[in-house]
Amino acid sequence: MILDLAESTKTINERTVKKVPTLRGRTVVNLFFEPSTRTRVSFEIAQKRLSADSVNFSVSDSSISKGETLVDTAKNLSAMNPSVVVIRHSVAGFPHRLAKLMDASVINAGDGFHEHPTQALLDLMTIRERKKEIKGLKVAIIGDIARSRVAGSNIPCLTKMGAEVTVMAPKTMLPFDVTRLGVKVAPSLKDAIKDKDVVMLLRIQTERDAATRFPSLREYNRYFGLKLEHLKYLKKDCIIMHPGPINRGVEIDPEVADGPFSVILDQVANGVSIRMAVLLLLLGGRSIYEVSD
Amino acid sequence: MILDLAESTKTINERTVKKVPTLRGRTVVNLFFEPSTRTRVSFEIAQKRLSADSVNFSVSDSSISKGETLVDTAKNLSAMNPSVVVIRHSVAGFPHRLAKLMDASVINAGDGFHEHPTQALLDLMTIRERKKEIKGLKVAIIGDIARSRVAGSNIPCLTKMGAEVTVMAPKTMLPFDVTRLGVKVAPSLKDAIKDKDVVMLLRIQTERDAATRFPSLREYNRYFGLKLEHLKYLKKDCIIMHPGPINRGVEIDPEVADGPFSVILDQVANGVSIRMAVLLLLLGGRSIYEVSD
Amino acid sequence: MILDLAESTKTINERTVKKVPTLRGRTVVNLFFEPSTRTRVSFEIAQKRLSADSVNFSVSDSSISKGETLVDTAKNLSAMNPSVVVIRHSVAGFPHRLAKLMDASVINAGDGFHEHPTQALLDLMTIRERKKEIKGLKVAIIGDIARSRVAGSNIPCLTKMGAEVTVMAPKTMLPFDVTRLGVKVAPSLKDAIKDKDVVMLLRIQTERDAATRFPSLREYNRYFGLKLEHLKYLKKDCIIMHPGPINRGVEIDPEVADGPFSVILDQVANGVSIRMAVLLLLLGGRSIYEVSD
Repeated sequence: MILDLAESTKTINERTVKKVPTLRGRTVVNLFFEPSTRTRVSFEIAQKRLSADSVNFSVSDSSISKGETLVDTAKNLSAMNPSVVVIRHSVAGFPHRLAKLMDASVINAGDGFHEHPTQALLDLMTIRERKKEIKGLKVAIIGDIARSRVAGSNIPCLTKMGAEVTVMAPKTMLPFDVTRLGVKVAPSLKDAIKDKDVVMLLRIQTERDAATRFPSLREYNRYFGLKLEHLKYLKKDCIIMHPGPINRGVEIDPEVADGPFSVILDQVANGVSIRMAVLLLLLGGRSIYEVSD
Repeated sequence: MILDLAESTKTINERTVKKVPTLRGRTVVNLFFEPSTRTRVSFEIAQKRLSADSVNFSVSDSSISKGETLVDTAKNLSAMNPSVVVIRHSVAGFPHRLAKLMDASVINAGDGFHEHPTQALLDLMTIRERKKEIKGLKVAIIGDIARSRVAGSNIPCLTKMGAEVTVMAPKTMLPFDVTRLGVKVAPSLKDAIKDKDVVMLLRIQTERDAATRFPSLREYNRYFGLKLEHLKYLKKDCIIMHPGPINRGVEIDPEVADGPFSVILDQVANGVSIRMAVLLLLLGGRSIYEVSD
Repeated sequence: MILDLAESTKTINERTVKKVPTLRGRTVVNLFFEPSTRTRVSFEIAQKRLSADSVNFSVSDSSISKGETLVDTAKNLSAMNPSVVVIRHSVAGFPHRLAKLMDASVINAGDGFHEHPTQALLDLMTIRERKKEIKGLKVAIIGDIARSRVAGSNIPCLTKMGAEVTVMAPKTMLPFDVTRLGVKVAPSLKDAIKDKDVVMLLRIQTERDAATRFPSLREYNRYFGLKLEHLKYLKKDCIIMHPGPINRGVEIDPEVADGPFSVILDQVANGVSIRMAVLLLLLGGRSIYEVSD
């Protein structure tokens, strides 16, 4: 249902006048406790194209620096009657806890190492645009499976929709009980990507992470980075995905990121449409399913 | 007049579509030189629900870091023809000075240790909702009377409206000439809160303040913090207020903040309505008194 | 054409309801990689008065802190279909490069030591308001000619329009090949300002700049700062301009900045009108030339 509605909202984003009045008079608070370009901007654009009133606040200007608890911040925001709160936070489960404290709908825009649901939805939308059907697809996910919230949402989402997921990573980046996720584990990058319909790369966080999980970014690139030389193993119609921001020369080489297999910018574009769909469904229910101008 | 109009604007905040077109095409600049959650967001939501155009800027991204004087910043903003400037600044009297330099209306959103007028108004609105009449009420204010801008606006506002105000604080937090404020001074917390219709707690600023005014936050809590054990001294229909952000376990214990006497979240909710009323009165005069959609 | 249209948009800024629906549903991203008061706020007010949807992001909350390249940031923004991106960046030529990577129109809001085109346009508008005709005017520009982006845009703009430009600065602040700019060089401040129709002062950046280009800010003020004693050399109808933020007592003395020759605040006011005109022309083409409500 979300994907179908996002196909409709996508048409709004392709018009000259990218705006419908549907959510006029609804207040949406964007509560970002971690830095973000694409996710915050994507949500904000989605809100404005639906005519909602967006109010941003980021951790730096908040009362949190005055020692207020997050729960109190949440209750205070709630008292101002927002319709939706979009939250990114470093603590897993915090958006879930927030949702119990508020009348407003809460959208998780990424919580720690846990989940990033609208990312998985926009990935699914991008896959479906190219492959029509998710069921039966073979998908490889390469990178920090244990701590990536993108993997945390994509693995259950893709398996639920009937895709077969294979993961590949340094052992230090695989969860101890990886098989419980319902995925296969590939022994090498080459094995992971061969005969797959979709290859999804995850972002390597920072040099500091690198030091504790593998010797260096250069070494990560050598064994786990997708490079020009790997393209010969891909199916002709394989698509390469990455949630961004990409680290060129670490998990993906520039020639691959900018090459014909890549759908990375499609993912970004679909992000706005998915977020519009999620906002509409939360605020209008199914009756809003038909988007009119 | 402001309180009556805020009762009307409150109905807008309780609708599904929380928006009226009244201030369409008016530019409001939010000029925050100190961090704030609730006040900035409350003003911004008020502006958007009245269809004004909000433009934020905070000190970090301003030319002040380039050495421009505040007066020049003000004159420059004024040249862009805003209708209203909402300002929070650490210098007492700065909004007053700004108002003389600008054609725009200036709203003081807190100036140093001086005043915070919309806070006093939202407090008054919250009291009136529960008590109908302000005249004759007995109000206790506990905390840093000398340096709290919340007290700085509430004491004159409440006494003007006919309430009887009693204050209580460590001696280091009382002004030297406290009786000139037209208030009584209670000798202990128990004496202060007994038989009061309203108990208003003030925020203890920081650990650093603590060190110069009293030995520790723990000691403040012991002698001046409102705790479960004090509730037996309260009148049955007493209301407990706090301007937020609250320091749980310092000036107020969690059981009290979240308990049945507390109207803290009502204060937050009323803040949006009061700010809408103030904006309407500044921009539309009395003719706007009737708010229609 | 831009100046003519800006005269029309200026009438919008003088109404009570400062808003036209012309750019409804167009998304404008304000991408500021350097701090700014007047330019960012001026652009944002211009956008809102044209009913465009503004989305801000500044460097502090961007993925750049996560190591993303600027080109990738740009491509990602582009994928979200903005109509216009307004960019300020410390690297000369970056907006030009960005424009090649995006479908959106890109407006340079200042790039390093290079150009600041909307500043030159608002200066031109301010001059034309007072002098009717640019052709034949004598204009002095005083200050850091070599590294000022304001000079970088004003010199070609003014000479193209037929004005005669004279510059004056410490030798360390003149480009090596200054005569190639098509300007005269005056030997002293007095010579520079005598018989001029327009005297434009440039901002001295910081104390740190001072140390490498001249001994101290005080010494700069002594030889290059415009002071009360210089006013006797000015033509009766000369206008004094400054792009702001001004350093009182460095390049300009307070009595001069606030005196009758100064049109500094006119420049700020015209900035909003010029930016509205630029946005309209980029998004509507000539057909939008007539602005209606």
